[in-house]
Amino acid sequence: MTTAVVAVDVGGTTVKASVVDDRGSRRYHRTAPSAGGDDTVAVIRTLIDALRADALADGLDVLAAGVVTPGLVDAGTGRVAYASNLGWRDLDLRAALEGPLGLPVSVGHDVRAAGRAERHLGAARGAGDFVLLQLGTGIAAAVVTEGALVSGAGSAAGEAGHMPVYPGGEPCPCGKRGCLEAYASGAAIARRYRAAGGRDGATARGVAGLLGRDPIADQVWDEAVTALALGVSTLTMVLDPALVVLGGGLALAGDALLRPVERALPELLVWRAAPRIRLSTLGTTGGEWGAAIEAFGLTASARCVEAWSRPVAPAV
Amino acid sequence: MTTAVVAVDVGGTTVKASVVDDRGSRRYHRTAPSAGGDDTVAVIRTLIDALRADALADGLDVLAAGVVTPGLVDAGTGRVAYASNLGWRDLDLRAALEGPLGLPVSVGHDVRAAGRAERHLGAARGAGDFVLLQLGTGIAAAVVTEGALVSGAGSAAGEAGHMPVYPGGEPCPCGKRGCLEAYASGAAIARRYRAAGGRDGATARGVAGLLGRDPIADQVWDEAVTALALGVSTLTMVLDPALVVLGGGLALAGDALLRPVERALPELLVWRAAPRIRLSTLGTTGGEWGAAIEAFGLTASARCVEAWSRPVAPAV
Repeated sequence: MTTAVVAVDVGGTTVKASVVDDRGSRRYHRTAPSAGGDDTVAVIRTLIDALRADALADGLDVLAAGVVTPGLVDAGTGRVAYASNLGWRDLDLRAALEGPLGLPVSVGHDVRAAGRAERHLGAARGAGDFVLLQLGTGIAAAVVTEGALVSGAGSAAGEAGHMPVYPGGEPCPCGKRGCLEAYASGAAIARRYRAAGGRDGATARGVAGLLGRDPIADQVWDEAVTALALGVSTLTMVLDPALVVLGGGLALAGDALLRPVERALPELLVWRAAPRIRLSTLGTTGGEWGAAIEAFGLTASARCVEAWSRPVAPAV
Repeated sequence: MTTAVVAVDVGGTTVKASVVDDRGSRRYHRTAPSAGGDDTVAVIRTLIDALRADALADGLDVLAAGVVTPGLVDAGTGRVAYASNLGWRDLDLRAALEGPLGLPVSVGHDVRAAGRAERHLGAARGAGDFVLLQLGTGIAAAVVTEGALVSGAGSAAGEAGHMPVYPGGEPCPCGKRGCLEAYASGAAIARRYRAAGGRDGATARGVAGLLGRDPIADQVWDEAVTALALGVSTLTMVLDPALVVLGGGLALAGDALLRPVERALPELLVWRAAPRIRLSTLGTTGGEWGAAIEAFGLTASARCVEAWSRPVAPAV
């Protein structure tokens, strides 16, 4: 019987879940709105149950589930100390899922899991020292050194969106000023474009679509990319990564994001070479792929181990 | 017979060397001016030979030597790819020493070795996730995550002095602008104090000695500490260390350095707790202690292993 896991990526607005089989194929996909607090835990359980039923009907044996979330997540204990978007505080997420489901469940951090996925299946395949910058509504990083993910003393490493790139600069929704995220996140690009007199209702994706045709879009995008390059230069000085992967929704802008970052770096680094910069190949599914890898890690099946160490072209 | 190693810290102006015995005591100490290029390699050999003779006369058996240097140092191969202060490029330092000396020699990076020493013997004893900021003429960091030193893809991690804390700010001698080192290194404090109209010939230590009595000294120091706190806040966001150790010559200023950094951090971090900040207990000898630890690592003696895992109060 083919074995599989259910992989769940819990976001502030949507919970995304898939069945991934031991050949590394994504077989079923379901989403549901996050409900907040305990209700989100119930949503996760319901999604896993539904996908397990989908899988079973297709002759797949689900061995484990992997769940990744934002916030302060301790993968060792399966607890989430704090996740502001989800209204969780000191939640034993693993226990809340394993008992009712009767299934082993791994609990991980969404962006670190995405970093794991980039290393196993994506743009950082085989890289020992790299950084994934996940550029979505907010910005966070997965830092990998000699093949190991950096979690930090309190599971809070990777808050690259809140590096102070312009001290005393624009207010960030986090309460600080001048954070990278205040210039270069999807939310910031949309907000700054509107504040500069741009069209109503434009999203970051919309702004990217207006480049070369709308001077306000050009300027806001340029400022975002400049802030991003500054952040990359700081990460380069401190960590000396071989590679920086740009992921998340903003990376769907492709070369419009990649090329100006590449162009800005030599001037910022002066006396050292820039790391390679690549776009994520996993798009916005990195968290789910990472959750699948972590769930396979709970199983003892050699086929499963094979599934996540083999190069797989994921169905993004 | 008591065993020992020779520990050598190679700097741009001075080479410092000691005998460290397997009980963790520093027994002999010699220094010599760095001569530059191949001559500095000869200086290192001469110092090691002289200290080995000192040790032998005292009944100590020298089993290995440890040498730490600035630059791009690969501890695995024993090669220094580049060290601007020393005029070294692609130097097989280990081979240049082991052959003539007939002694196993470890080659390491000075600041990473100092980080190792702080963890084993100093202010970071037992810490898993911490950063040592070595504040001397320049600024560099040793980054430790889950007990492992971060070297980076090209042995160039830890260039924290060249994080752009004020983009487009003051020129740094490195050719970039706004680097942490342009505000908060010993050289920068002395330079900025003189440029602001301070007394002739003052060093950073002199400036620290004038605090509270010389408004120019107060201002330059305050700006240095503010830049330093910004740098610490960036490192905190990215790495989530439990502890940041302030070392190097500037840390000899003690509370005049420590307290204002501690006071500045909460405002910069807003929504997360600051890591603990401590002064190095190894002063400017961290590199030598680290070299000793690395040299003991070449020997198979259990006593030597014990020597560097035991808490030792070093003779600074």
